[in-house]
Amino acid sequence: MRVLVPDLSDFRALTVPSVELAFYRRGDVPPGEADGVVLWLTDTGTRDALLKVPGLRWLLTLTAGIDHVQGVLPPGVHLFNANALHDRAVAVHVVTGMLAAMRGLHRFRDAQREGHWLKVFPPESNLHTLDGLKVVLWGYGHIGRIVDDLLAPFGMITYAINSRTEPDLLEYRLREADWVVLLLPSTEQTRGIVNAELLNKLKPGAWLSNQGRGNLIVTDDLLAALDSGHLGGAVLDVTDPEPLPDGHPLFAQENVIVTPHIASTTTDLLKRGAAYTRNFLLDLTQGREPDGLVAADRVY
Amino acid sequence: MRVLVPDLSDFRALTVPSVELAFYRRGDVPPGEADGVVLWLTDTGTRDALLKVPGLRWLLTLTAGIDHVQGVLPPGVHLFNANALHDRAVAVHVVTGMLAAMRGLHRFRDAQREGHWLKVFPPESNLHTLDGLKVVLWGYGHIGRIVDDLLAPFGMITYAINSRTEPDLLEYRLREADWVVLLLPSTEQTRGIVNAELLNKLKPGAWLSNQGRGNLIVTDDLLAALDSGHLGGAVLDVTDPEPLPDGHPLFAQENVIVTPHIASTTTDLLKRGAAYTRNFLLDLTQGREPDGLVAADRVY
Repeated sequence: MRVLVPDLSDFRALTVPSVELAFYRRGDVPPGEADGVVLWLTDTGTRDALLKVPGLRWLLTLTAGIDHVQGVLPPGVHLFNANALHDRAVAVHVVTGMLAAMRGLHRFRDAQREGHWLKVFPPESNLHTLDGLKVVLWGYGHIGRIVDDLLAPFGMITYAINSRTEPDLLEYRLREADWVVLLLPSTEQTRGIVNAELLNKLKPGAWLSNQGRGNLIVTDDLLAALDSGHLGGAVLDVTDPEPLPDGHPLFAQENVIVTPHIASTTTDLLKRGAAYTRNFLLDLTQGREPDGLVAADRVY
Repeated sequence: MRVLVPDLSDFRALTVPSVELAFYRRGDVPPGEADGVVLWLTDTGTRDALLKVPGLRWLLTLTAGIDHVQGVLPPGVHLFNANALHDRAVAVHVVTGMLAAMRGLHRFRDAQREGHWLKVFPPESNLHTLDGLKVVLWGYGHIGRIVDDLLAPFGMITYAINSRTEPDLLEYRLREADWVVLLLPSTEQTRGIVNAELLNKLKPGAWLSNQGRGNLIVTDDLLAALDSGHLGGAVLDVTDPEPLPDGHPLFAQENVIVTPHIASTTTDLLKRGAAYTRNFLLDLTQGREPDGLVAADRVY
Protein backbone atom coordinates (compact mmCIF):
# COMPACT_ATOMS: atom_id res chain seq x y z
CA MET A 1 0.00 0.00 0.00
CA ARG A 2 1.39 3.41 -0.98
CA VAL A 3 0.33 6.40 1.08
CA LEU A 4 1.10 10.10 0.75
CA VAL A 5 1.78 11.84 4.05
CA PRO A 6 3.01 15.33 5.02
CA ASP A 7 6.76 15.86 4.89
CA LEU A 8 7.28 16.41 8.62
CA SER A 9 9.97 14.81 10.74
CA ASP A 10 7.46 12.88 12.85
CA PHE A 11 6.04 11.33 9.67
CA ARG A 12 9.50 10.68 8.23
CA ALA A 13 10.18 8.63 11.36
CA LEU A 14 7.15 6.36 10.81
CA THR A 15 7.49 2.75 9.74
CA VAL A 16 4.39 0.70 9.09
CA PRO A 17 4.67 -2.91 7.85
CA SER A 18 3.53 -3.33 4.21
CA VAL A 19 3.03 0.43 3.77
CA GLU A 20 5.24 2.56 1.54
CA LEU A 21 5.14 6.18 2.64
CA ALA A 22 5.75 9.05 0.21
CA PHE A 23 6.02 12.64 1.36
CA TYR A 24 4.37 15.75 -0.01
CA ARG A 25 5.00 19.41 0.69
CA ARG A 26 3.09 22.52 -0.26
CA GLY A 27 3.11 22.66 -4.05
CA ASP A 28 5.13 19.45 -4.30
CA VAL A 29 3.21 16.16 -4.62
CA PRO A 30 5.32 13.10 -5.50
CA PRO A 31 4.35 11.40 -8.78
CA GLY A 32 2.78 7.96 -9.10
CA GLU A 33 -0.27 6.11 -7.81
CA ALA A 34 -1.30 6.08 -4.16
CA ASP A 35 -3.94 4.14 -2.26
CA GLY A 36 -4.43 6.83 0.31
CA VAL A 37 -3.60 10.38 1.33
CA VAL A 38 -3.13 11.74 4.84
CA LEU A 39 -4.14 15.39 4.49
CA TRP A 40 -2.79 17.95 6.96
CA LEU A 41 -1.30 21.42 7.25
CA THR A 42 -1.30 22.17 3.56
CA ASP A 43 -2.89 24.66 1.16
CA THR A 44 -5.84 24.30 -1.21
CA GLY A 45 -3.65 23.96 -4.31
CA THR A 46 -1.72 21.04 -2.82
CA ARG A 47 -4.98 19.55 -1.52
CA ASP A 48 -6.45 19.63 -5.03
CA ALA A 49 -3.32 17.99 -6.46
CA LEU A 50 -3.48 15.27 -3.78
CA LEU A 51 -7.12 14.55 -4.59
CA LYS A 52 -6.15 13.92 -8.24
CA VAL A 53 -3.53 11.28 -7.40
CA PRO A 54 -4.27 8.17 -9.52
CA GLY A 55 -5.56 5.09 -7.68
CA LEU A 56 -6.84 7.01 -4.66
CA ARG A 57 -9.19 4.93 -2.54
CA TRP A 58 -9.25 6.82 0.75
CA LEU A 59 -8.37 10.11 2.35
CA LEU A 60 -7.63 10.69 6.02
CA THR A 61 -7.83 14.33 7.05
CA LEU A 62 -6.06 14.84 10.37
CA THR A 63 -8.63 17.47 11.31
CA ALA A 64 -11.95 17.28 13.08
CA GLY A 65 -13.79 19.41 10.52
CA ILE A 66 -14.23 18.15 6.96
CA ASP A 67 -15.62 21.25 5.23
CA HIS A 68 -12.31 21.71 3.40
CA VAL A 69 -12.75 18.40 1.55
CA GLN A 70 -16.53 18.04 1.26
CA GLY A 71 -17.61 18.83 -2.30
CA VAL A 72 -14.16 18.31 -3.76
CA LEU A 73 -13.71 14.64 -2.84
CA PRO A 74 -13.75 12.38 -5.95
CA PRO A 75 -16.64 9.88 -6.01
CA GLY A 76 -15.87 6.54 -4.42
CA VAL A 77 -13.05 7.85 -2.23
CA HIS A 78 -13.65 7.00 1.43
CA LEU A 79 -13.21 9.93 3.82
CA PHE A 80 -11.95 9.63 7.38
CA ASN A 81 -11.49 12.43 9.88
CA ALA A 82 -9.58 12.52 13.17
CA ASN A 83 -11.79 13.71 15.99
CA ALA A 84 -9.85 11.79 18.59
CA LEU A 85 -6.70 13.74 17.75
CA HIS A 86 -8.30 17.05 18.68
CA ASP A 87 -11.27 16.56 20.99
CA ARG A 88 -9.58 16.79 24.33
CA ALA A 89 -7.37 19.82 23.68
CA VAL A 90 -10.31 21.67 22.14
CA ALA A 91 -12.49 20.87 25.13
CA VAL A 92 -9.79 22.08 27.52
CA HIS A 93 -9.41 25.24 25.45
CA VAL A 94 -13.17 25.88 25.52
CA VAL A 95 -13.29 25.65 29.31
CA THR A 96 -10.15 27.78 29.63
CA GLY A 97 -11.73 30.58 27.62
CA MET A 98 -14.90 30.55 29.71
CA LEU A 99 -12.98 30.64 32.97
CA ALA A 100 -10.58 33.34 31.76
CA ALA A 101 -13.48 35.55 30.68
CA MET A 102 -15.36 35.13 33.97
CA ARG A 103 -12.18 35.83 35.97
CA GLY A 104 -11.47 38.94 33.87
CA LEU A 105 -7.99 37.81 32.80
CA HIS A 106 -8.24 39.73 29.51
CA ARG A 107 -8.98 43.02 31.30
CA PHE A 108 -6.24 42.48 33.85
CA ARG A 109 -3.79 41.62 31.08
CA ASP A 110 -4.59 44.88 29.34
CA ALA A 111 -3.93 46.79 32.59
CA GLN A 112 -0.72 44.81 33.12
CA ARG A 113 0.61 45.75 29.69
CA GLU A 114 0.00 49.37 30.65
CA GLY A 115 2.03 48.73 33.80
CA HIS A 116 -0.98 49.26 36.03
CA TRP A 117 -2.55 47.50 39.03
CA LEU A 118 -6.27 47.66 38.25
CA LYS A 119 -8.17 48.08 41.52
CA VAL A 120 -11.71 46.70 41.37
CA PHE A 121 -14.63 46.99 43.78
CA PRO A 122 -16.49 43.67 43.95
CA PRO A 123 -19.98 44.84 42.85
CA GLU A 124 -18.50 46.48 39.76
CA SER A 125 -15.89 43.79 39.13
CA ASN A 126 -17.94 41.67 36.73
CA LEU A 127 -16.01 38.70 38.12
CA HIS A 128 -17.68 35.36 38.61
CA THR A 129 -17.05 31.73 39.23
CA LEU A 130 -19.02 29.42 36.93
CA ASP A 131 -21.31 28.28 39.75
CA GLY A 132 -24.94 28.36 38.71
CA LEU A 133 -24.26 29.83 35.27
CA LYS A 134 -26.17 28.21 32.43
CA VAL A 135 -24.33 27.15 29.30
CA VAL A 136 -25.74 25.88 26.03
CA LEU A 137 -23.35 23.46 24.35
CA TRP A 138 -24.56 23.88 20.79
CA GLY A 139 -23.24 20.84 19.02
CA TYR A 140 -22.88 17.91 21.37
CA GLY A 141 -20.50 15.38 19.89
CA HIS A 142 -17.12 14.17 21.08
CA ILE A 143 -15.95 17.63 22.19
CA GLY A 144 -19.20 18.64 23.89
CA ARG A 145 -19.19 15.57 26.07
CA ILE A 146 -15.64 16.24 27.27
CA VAL A 147 -16.50 19.90 27.93
CA ASP A 148 -19.42 18.67 30.02
CA ASP A 149 -17.12 16.44 32.08
CA LEU A 150 -14.55 19.18 32.62
CA LEU A 151 -17.21 21.70 33.66
CA ALA A 152 -18.97 19.41 36.12
CA PRO A 153 -16.94 20.33 39.24
CA PHE A 154 -17.28 24.05 38.45
CA GLY A 155 -21.03 23.97 39.16
CA MET A 156 -22.10 25.17 35.74
CA ILE A 157 -25.47 24.05 34.45
CA THR A 158 -25.03 22.59 30.96
CA TYR A 159 -27.64 22.09 28.27
CA ALA A 160 -26.73 19.95 25.27
CA ILE A 161 -28.18 20.90 21.91
CA ASN A 162 -27.85 18.73 18.82
CA SER A 163 -29.48 18.60 15.41
CA ARG A 164 -32.43 16.67 16.83
CA THR A 165 -33.28 19.31 19.46
CA GLU A 166 -36.73 20.89 18.89
CA PRO A 167 -36.39 24.50 17.66
CA ASP A 168 -38.64 25.74 20.48
CA LEU A 169 -36.46 24.14 23.11
CA LEU A 170 -33.33 25.49 21.45
CA GLU A 171 -34.78 28.99 21.52
CA TYR A 172 -35.80 28.63 25.16
CA ARG A 173 -32.34 27.45 26.12
CA LEU A 174 -30.67 30.27 24.19
CA ARG A 175 -32.85 32.92 25.83
CA GLU A 176 -31.85 31.87 29.34
CA ALA A 177 -28.19 31.02 28.72
CA ASP A 178 -25.31 32.88 30.35
CA TRP A 179 -22.98 31.23 27.83
CA VAL A 180 -23.50 29.81 24.36
CA VAL A 181 -20.68 27.59 23.14
CA LEU A 182 -20.64 26.83 19.42
CA LEU A 183 -19.19 23.42 18.65
CA LEU A 184 -20.96 23.06 15.30
CA PRO A 185 -19.34 22.17 11.98
CA SER A 186 -19.69 24.50 9.04
CA THR A 187 -22.46 23.27 6.74
CA GLU A 188 -25.17 24.79 4.59
CA GLN A 189 -27.47 24.56 7.61
CA THR A 190 -25.10 26.18 10.11
CA ARG A 191 -23.38 28.97 8.17
CA GLY A 192 -24.43 32.32 9.58
CA ILE A 193 -26.65 30.64 12.18
CA VAL A 194 -25.56 33.23 14.74
CA ASN A 195 -26.91 36.40 13.18
CA ALA A 196 -28.52 39.58 14.51
CA GLU A 197 -31.87 37.87 15.03
CA LEU A 198 -30.36 35.12 17.14
CA LEU A 199 -28.04 37.45 19.06
CA ASN A 200 -31.03 39.61 20.00
CA LYS A 201 -32.68 36.58 21.57
CA LEU A 202 -29.79 36.05 23.97
CA LYS A 203 -30.01 37.35 27.51
CA PRO A 204 -28.36 40.77 27.94
CA GLY A 205 -24.79 40.22 29.08
CA ALA A 206 -24.57 36.66 27.76
CA TRP A 207 -21.21 35.46 26.42
CA LEU A 208 -20.60 33.59 23.19
CA SER A 209 -17.80 31.09 22.54
CA ASN A 210 -16.99 29.91 19.04
CA GLN A 211 -14.74 26.91 18.72
CA GLY A 212 -16.47 25.43 15.68
CA ARG A 213 -15.98 27.35 12.46
CA GLY A 214 -15.73 31.09 11.94
CA ASN A 215 -18.59 31.35 9.48
CA LEU A 216 -21.15 30.09 11.99
CA ILE A 217 -21.27 33.74 13.09
CA VAL A 218 -22.12 36.78 10.98
CA THR A 219 -19.18 38.91 12.05
CA ASP A 220 -20.84 42.29 11.44
CA ASP A 221 -23.83 41.23 13.54
CA LEU A 222 -21.49 40.09 16.32
CA LEU A 223 -19.70 43.45 16.28
CA ALA A 224 -23.05 45.27 16.46
CA ALA A 225 -24.19 43.16 19.43
CA LEU A 226 -20.92 43.91 21.21
CA ASP A 227 -21.02 47.63 20.41
CA SER A 228 -24.59 47.93 21.69
CA GLY A 229 -23.57 46.25 24.94
CA HIS A 230 -26.23 43.58 24.49
CA LEU A 231 -23.65 40.80 24.33
CA GLY A 232 -21.36 40.49 27.35
CA GLY A 233 -18.44 39.28 25.28
CA ALA A 234 -17.11 36.57 23.00
CA VAL A 235 -14.32 34.02 23.04
CA LEU A 236 -13.30 33.23 19.48
CA ASP A 237 -10.82 30.62 18.34
CA VAL A 238 -12.24 30.73 14.82
CA THR A 239 -13.33 33.81 12.91
CA ASP A 240 -14.75 35.01 9.60
CA PRO A 241 -12.63 36.04 7.82
CA GLU A 242 -9.84 33.78 9.05
CA PRO A 243 -7.16 34.68 9.76
CA LEU A 244 -8.44 38.08 10.83
CA PRO A 245 -6.52 40.71 8.88
CA ASP A 246 -4.28 43.01 10.91
CA GLY A 247 -6.29 45.71 12.64
CA HIS A 248 -9.67 43.99 12.22
CA PRO A 249 -12.27 45.59 14.53
CA LEU A 250 -12.80 42.32 16.46
CA PHE A 251 -9.26 42.66 17.83
CA ALA A 252 -10.09 46.03 19.38
CA GLN A 253 -13.10 44.82 21.39
CA GLU A 254 -12.19 44.69 25.08
CA ASN A 255 -14.54 41.80 25.81
CA VAL A 256 -13.54 39.72 22.83
CA ILE A 257 -10.84 37.14 23.49
CA VAL A 258 -9.28 36.00 20.22
CA THR A 259 -7.02 32.97 19.87
CA PRO A 260 -5.65 32.14 16.41
CA HIS A 261 -7.38 28.79 15.72
CA ILE A 262 -5.16 26.95 18.16
CA ALA A 263 -7.81 25.23 20.30
CA SER A 264 -6.39 21.82 19.45
CA THR A 265 -2.76 22.87 19.26
CA THR A 266 -0.26 21.41 21.70
CA THR A 267 3.51 21.20 21.38
CA ASP A 268 3.18 17.47 20.67
CA LEU A 269 0.41 17.77 18.08
CA LEU A 270 2.55 16.71 15.11
CA LYS A 271 3.88 13.76 17.07
CA ARG A 272 0.34 12.81 18.04
CA GLY A 273 -0.77 13.22 14.44
CA ALA A 274 1.94 10.86 13.24
CA ALA A 275 1.05 8.31 15.92
CA TYR A 276 -2.62 8.59 14.96
CA THR A 277 -1.66 7.97 11.33
CA ARG A 278 0.36 4.90 12.25
CA ASN A 279 -2.55 3.38 14.19
CA PHE A 280 -4.85 4.19 11.29
CA LEU A 281 -2.56 2.44 8.81
CA LEU A 282 -2.15 -0.57 11.11
CA ASP A 283 -5.93 -0.87 11.28
CA LEU A 284 -6.18 -0.69 7.49
CA THR A 285 -3.40 -3.16 6.77
CA GLN A 286 -4.58 -5.60 9.43
CA GLY A 287 -8.18 -5.67 8.22
CA ARG A 288 -9.84 -3.53 10.92
CA GLU A 289 -11.98 -0.57 9.96
CA PRO A 290 -10.27 2.56 11.29
CA ASP A 291 -12.15 5.11 13.37
CA GLY A 292 -13.49 8.23 11.74
CA LEU A 293 -15.19 6.97 8.57
CA VAL A 294 -17.45 9.76 7.37
CA ALA A 295 -20.70 8.43 5.89
CA ALA A 296 -20.95 9.41 2.23
CA ASP A 297 -24.29 11.14 2.78
CA ARG A 298 -23.25 13.00 5.91
CA VAL A 299 -23.35 16.75 5.63
CA TYR A 300 -20.69 16.86 8.32
CA MET B 1 -25.02 42.37 71.72
CA ARG B 2 -23.53 45.36 69.90
CA VAL B 3 -21.43 44.68 66.82
CA LEU B 4 -19.47 47.03 64.55
CA VAL B 5 -19.75 46.17 60.87
CA PRO B 6 -18.63 47.88 57.64
CA ASP B 7 -20.91 50.61 56.36
CA LEU B 8 -21.95 48.86 53.14
CA SER B 9 -25.49 48.59 51.84
CA ASP B 10 -25.55 44.81 52.19
CA PHE B 11 -24.67 45.19 55.89
CA ARG B 12 -27.14 48.05 56.37
CA ALA B 13 -29.83 45.62 55.16
CA LEU B 14 -29.01 43.02 57.84
CA THR B 15 -31.29 42.33 60.77
CA VAL B 16 -30.23 39.83 63.41
CA PRO B 17 -32.44 39.20 66.48
CA SER B 18 -30.88 40.57 69.71
CA VAL B 19 -27.96 42.16 67.84
CA GLU B 20 -27.53 45.90 67.51
CA LEU B 21 -25.41 46.74 64.48
CA ALA B 22 -23.31 49.89 64.29
CA PHE B 23 -21.48 50.94 61.14
CA TYR B 24 -17.92 52.07 60.68
CA ARG B 25 -16.20 53.67 57.71
CA ARG B 26 -12.55 54.38 57.01
CA GLY B 27 -11.43 56.79 59.69
CA ASP B 28 -14.86 56.87 61.29
CA VAL B 29 -15.54 54.39 64.12
CA PRO B 30 -18.78 54.95 66.08
CA PRO B 31 -18.28 55.62 69.81
CA GLY B 32 -19.28 53.31 72.64
CA GLU B 33 -18.70 49.72 73.69
CA ALA B 34 -19.01 46.76 71.33
CA ASP B 35 -18.92 43.02 71.88
CA GLY B 36 -17.56 42.28 68.48
CA VAL B 37 -16.13 43.72 65.28
CA VAL B 38 -16.56 42.45 61.74
CA LEU B 39 -13.38 43.60 60.00
CA TRP B 40 -13.37 44.06 56.25
CA LEU B 41 -12.25 46.36 53.45
CA THR B 42 -10.74 49.01 55.67
CA ASP B 43 -7.32 50.57 56.31
CA THR B 44 -4.82 49.95 59.09
CA GLY B 45 -5.74 53.16 60.96
CA THR B 46 -9.39 52.20 61.14
CA ARG B 47 -8.42 48.62 62.04
CA ASP B 48 -6.34 49.89 64.97
CA ALA B 49 -9.22 52.10 66.15
CA LEU B 50 -11.63 49.14 65.94
CA LEU B 51 -9.29 46.97 68.01
CA LYS B 52 -9.37 49.60 70.78
CA VAL B 53 -13.15 49.61 71.10
CA PRO B 54 -14.05 49.08 74.78
CA GLY B 55 -15.65 45.77 75.71
CA LEU B 56 -14.32 43.90 72.66
CA ARG B 57 -14.62 40.13 73.07
CA TRP B 58 -14.27 38.86 69.50
CA LEU B 59 -13.21 39.88 66.04
CA LEU B 60 -14.37 38.33 62.78
CA THR B 61 -12.17 39.15 59.83
CA LEU B 62 -14.00 38.46 56.60
CA THR B 63 -10.76 37.36 54.98
CA ALA B 64 -9.03 34.01 54.74
CA GLY B 65 -5.62 35.36 55.81
CA ILE B 66 -5.13 36.73 59.31
CA ASP B 67 -1.64 38.26 59.06
CA HIS B 68 -3.18 41.76 59.17
CA VAL B 69 -4.51 41.18 62.71
CA GLN B 70 -1.97 38.78 64.21
CA GLY B 71 0.28 40.63 66.63
CA VAL B 72 -2.11 43.54 67.05
CA LEU B 73 -5.04 41.66 68.54
CA PRO B 74 -5.62 42.58 72.22
CA PRO B 75 -5.16 39.65 74.63
CA GLY B 76 -8.34 37.67 75.30
CA VAL B 77 -10.10 38.72 72.12
CA HIS B 78 -11.24 35.68 70.13
CA LEU B 79 -10.32 35.76 66.45
CA PHE B 80 -12.40 34.22 63.68
CA ASN B 81 -11.60 34.17 59.97
CA ALA B 82 -13.80 33.41 56.98
CA ASN B 83 -12.25 30.73 54.80
CA ALA B 84 -15.60 29.53 53.55
CA LEU B 85 -16.34 32.95 52.06
CA HIS B 86 -13.32 32.79 49.77
CA ASP B 87 -12.17 29.21 49.23
CA ARG B 88 -14.16 28.31 46.18
CA ALA B 89 -13.58 31.47 44.14
CA VAL B 90 -9.86 31.35 44.95
CA ALA B 91 -9.68 27.71 43.88
CA VAL B 92 -11.47 28.52 40.61
CA HIS B 93 -9.10 31.44 40.07
CA VAL B 94 -6.05 29.22 40.66
CA VAL B 95 -7.18 26.69 38.08
CA THR B 96 -8.11 29.46 35.63
CA GLY B 97 -4.61 30.91 35.81
CA MET B 98 -2.98 27.55 35.19
CA LEU B 99 -5.20 26.79 32.21
CA ALA B 100 -4.80 30.29 30.76
CA ALA B 101 -1.01 30.04 30.98
CA MET B 102 -0.88 26.59 29.36
CA ARG B 103 -3.24 27.72 26.57
CA GLY B 104 -1.14 30.85 25.97
CA LEU B 105 -4.02 33.29 26.48
CA HIS B 106 -1.67 36.01 27.75
CA ARG B 107 0.48 35.87 24.62
CA PHE B 108 -2.54 35.81 22.32
CA ARG B 109 -4.04 38.77 24.19
CA ASP B 110 -0.87 40.75 23.66
CA ALA B 111 -1.02 39.99 19.91
CA GLN B 112 -4.71 40.88 19.86
CA ARG B 113 -4.09 44.29 21.40
CA GLU B 114 -1.58 44.88 18.60
CA GLY B 115 -4.32 43.95 16.14
CA HIS B 116 -2.47 40.85 15.03
CA TRP B 117 -3.34 37.20 14.36
CA LEU B 118 -0.39 35.33 15.88
CA LYS B 119 0.30 32.26 13.75
CA VAL B 120 1.95 29.43 15.70
CA PHE B 121 3.51 26.16 14.57
CA PRO B 122 2.65 23.38 17.04
CA PRO B 123 6.19 22.33 18.10
CA GLU B 124 7.07 25.94 18.92
CA SER B 125 3.66 26.83 20.33
CA ASN B 126 4.42 26.06 23.97
CA LEU B 127 0.73 25.15 24.28
CA HIS B 128 -0.40 22.29 26.46
CA THR B 129 -3.36 20.74 28.10
CA LEU B 130 -2.83 19.87 31.76
CA ASP B 131 -2.72 16.13 31.06
CA GLY B 132 0.18 14.47 32.77
CA LEU B 133 1.62 17.68 34.20
CA LYS B 134 2.72 17.51 37.82
CA VAL B 135 1.60 20.18 40.25
CA VAL B 136 2.69 20.76 43.82
CA LEU B 137 -0.10 22.27 45.90
CA TRP B 138 2.03 23.90 48.59
CA GLY B 139 -0.40 24.54 51.38
CA TYR B 140 -3.18 22.02 51.38
CA GLY B 141 -6.10 23.36 53.36
CA HIS B 142 -9.60 24.31 52.30
CA ILE B 143 -8.50 25.87 49.01
CA GLY B 144 -6.02 23.15 48.05
CA ARG B 145 -8.64 20.47 48.36
CA ILE B 146 -11.05 22.32 46.06
CA VAL B 147 -8.25 22.95 43.56
CA ASP B 148 -7.58 19.22 43.62
CA ASP B 149 -11.23 18.45 42.86
CA LEU B 150 -11.40 20.99 40.04
CA LEU B 151 -8.18 19.71 38.46
CA ALA B 152 -9.11 16.03 38.58
CA PRO B 153 -10.84 15.79 35.18
CA PHE B 154 -7.96 17.70 33.51
CA GLY B 155 -5.58 14.80 34.06
CA MET B 156 -3.07 16.75 36.14
CA ILE B 157 -1.05 14.87 38.73
CA THR B 158 -1.32 16.69 42.06
CA TYR B 159 0.96 16.46 45.09
CA ALA B 160 -0.22 17.98 48.36
CA ILE B 161 2.35 19.56 50.65
CA ASN B 162 1.57 20.75 54.15
CA SER B 163 3.60 21.75 57.18
CA ARG B 164 4.02 18.08 58.17
CA THR B 165 5.61 17.08 54.84
CA GLU B 166 9.22 15.89 55.23
CA PRO B 167 11.69 18.45 53.80
CA ASP B 168 13.30 15.77 51.59
CA LEU B 169 9.97 14.85 50.07
CA LEU B 170 9.09 18.52 49.55
CA GLU B 171 12.36 19.07 47.72
CA TYR B 172 11.84 15.99 45.57
CA ARG B 173 8.35 17.12 44.63
CA LEU B 174 9.55 20.63 43.84
CA ARG B 175 12.34 19.35 41.60
CA GLU B 176 9.98 17.36 39.38
CA ALA B 177 7.01 19.73 39.36
CA ASP B 178 5.72 21.41 36.19
CA TRP B 179 3.71 23.77 38.41
CA VAL B 180 4.13 24.97 41.98
CA VAL B 181 1.03 26.59 43.46
CA LEU B 182 1.55 28.60 46.64
CA LEU B 183 -1.47 28.52 48.92
CA LEU B 184 0.47 29.31 52.09
CA PRO B 185 -0.31 32.03 54.62
CA SER B 186 2.27 34.66 55.41
CA THR B 187 4.08 33.76 58.64
CA GLU B 188 7.59 34.03 60.03
CA GLN B 189 8.21 30.56 58.62
CA THR B 190 6.89 31.23 55.12
CA ARG B 191 8.04 34.76 54.32
CA GLY B 192 10.55 34.68 51.48
CA ILE B 193 10.30 30.90 51.26
CA VAL B 194 10.48 31.15 47.47
CA ASN B 195 13.94 32.62 47.00
CA ALA B 196 16.78 32.15 44.51
CA GLU B 197 17.89 28.90 46.13
CA LEU B 198 14.45 27.36 45.88
CA LEU B 199 13.77 28.70 42.39
CA ASN B 200 17.03 27.11 41.19
CA LYS B 201 15.78 23.74 42.37
CA LEU B 202 12.73 23.89 40.14
CA LYS B 203 12.74 22.10 36.81
CA PRO B 204 13.67 24.41 33.93
CA GLY B 205 10.47 25.76 32.42
CA ALA B 206 8.36 25.16 35.53
CA TRP B 207 5.61 27.65 36.32
CA LEU B 208 4.84 29.23 39.66
CA SER B 209 1.43 30.37 40.91
CA ASN B 210 1.07 32.55 43.97
CA GLN B 211 -2.39 32.90 45.45
CA GLY B 212 -1.27 33.02 49.07
CA ARG B 213 0.54 36.20 50.08
CA GLY B 214 2.93 38.32 48.08
CA ASN B 215 5.82 38.12 50.52
CA LEU B 216 6.10 34.33 50.19
CA ILE B 217 8.24 35.17 47.16
CA VAL B 218 11.41 37.27 47.03
CA THR B 219 10.40 39.45 44.09
CA ASP B 220 13.94 40.22 42.92
CA ASP B 221 14.78 36.51 42.87
CA LEU B 222 11.61 35.80 40.90
CA LEU B 223 12.53 38.45 38.35
CA ALA B 224 16.03 36.98 38.01
CA ALA B 225 14.64 33.45 37.48
CA LEU B 226 12.32 34.81 34.79
CA ASP B 227 15.02 36.85 33.09
CA SER B 228 17.39 33.89 32.98
CA GLY B 229 14.67 31.79 31.34
CA HIS B 230 14.95 29.16 34.08
CA LEU B 231 11.37 29.72 35.21
CA GLY B 232 8.70 29.19 32.56
CA GLY B 233 6.42 31.83 34.00
CA ALA B 234 4.35 32.92 36.97
CA VAL B 235 0.73 33.59 37.74
CA LEU B 236 0.49 36.12 40.56
CA ASP B 237 -2.65 37.31 42.30
CA VAL B 238 -0.58 38.64 45.21
CA THR B 239 2.73 40.47 45.00
CA ASP B 240 5.42 42.13 47.08
CA PRO B 241 5.08 45.07 47.14
CA GLU B 242 1.33 45.11 46.87
CA PRO B 243 -0.20 46.80 45.05
CA LEU B 244 2.62 46.80 42.49
CA PRO B 245 3.50 50.41 41.74
CA ASP B 246 2.85 51.62 38.20
CA GLY B 247 5.53 50.42 35.81
CA HIS B 248 6.93 47.73 38.14
CA PRO B 249 9.17 45.29 36.19
CA LEU B 250 6.87 42.33 36.98
CA PHE B 251 4.21 43.92 34.77
CA ALA B 252 6.55 43.88 31.76
CA GLN B 253 7.33 40.15 31.90
CA GLU B 254 5.57 38.38 29.03
CA ASN B 255 5.15 35.13 30.95
CA VAL B 256 3.92 36.72 34.15
CA ILE B 257 0.17 36.94 34.50
CA VAL B 258 -0.77 39.50 37.15
CA THR B 259 -4.23 39.86 38.65
CA PRO B 260 -4.76 42.52 41.33
CA HIS B 261 -5.53 40.37 44.39
CA ILE B 262 -8.99 39.47 43.12
CA ALA B 263 -8.81 35.67 43.38
CA SER B 264 -11.78 35.62 45.71
CA THR B 265 -13.63 38.56 44.18
CA THR B 266 -17.01 38.02 42.60
CA THR B 267 -19.74 40.57 41.91
CA ASP B 268 -21.72 39.16 44.82
CA LEU B 269 -18.84 39.11 47.32
CA LEU B 270 -20.23 41.90 49.55
CA LYS B 271 -23.64 40.23 49.58
CA ARG B 272 -22.01 36.93 50.47
CA GLY B 273 -19.94 38.62 53.16
CA ALA B 274 -23.06 40.10 54.72
CA ALA B 275 -24.84 36.74 54.60
CA TYR B 276 -21.79 35.09 56.17
CA THR B 277 -21.85 37.69 58.94
CA ARG B 278 -25.55 37.09 59.61
CA ASN B 279 -25.01 33.33 59.96
CA PHE B 280 -22.04 34.00 62.22
CA LEU B 281 -24.11 36.27 64.47
CA LEU B 282 -27.00 33.78 64.54
CA ASP B 283 -24.56 31.09 65.66
CA LEU B 284 -23.19 33.36 68.41
CA THR B 285 -26.57 34.54 69.71
CA GLN B 286 -28.07 31.07 69.61
CA GLY B 287 -25.22 29.45 71.53
CA ARG B 288 -23.44 27.60 68.71
CA GLU B 289 -19.72 28.11 68.15
CA PRO B 290 -19.27 29.76 64.76
CA ASP B 291 -16.86 28.36 62.17
CA GLY B 292 -13.44 29.89 61.79
CA LEU B 293 -12.16 30.22 65.37
CA VAL B 294 -8.42 30.73 65.16
CA ALA B 295 -6.58 28.98 67.98
CA ALA B 296 -4.73 31.53 70.13
CA ASP B 297 -1.39 29.77 69.61
CA ARG B 298 -1.80 29.35 65.86
CA VAL B 299 0.78 31.15 63.78
CA TYR B 300 -1.83 31.30 61.01
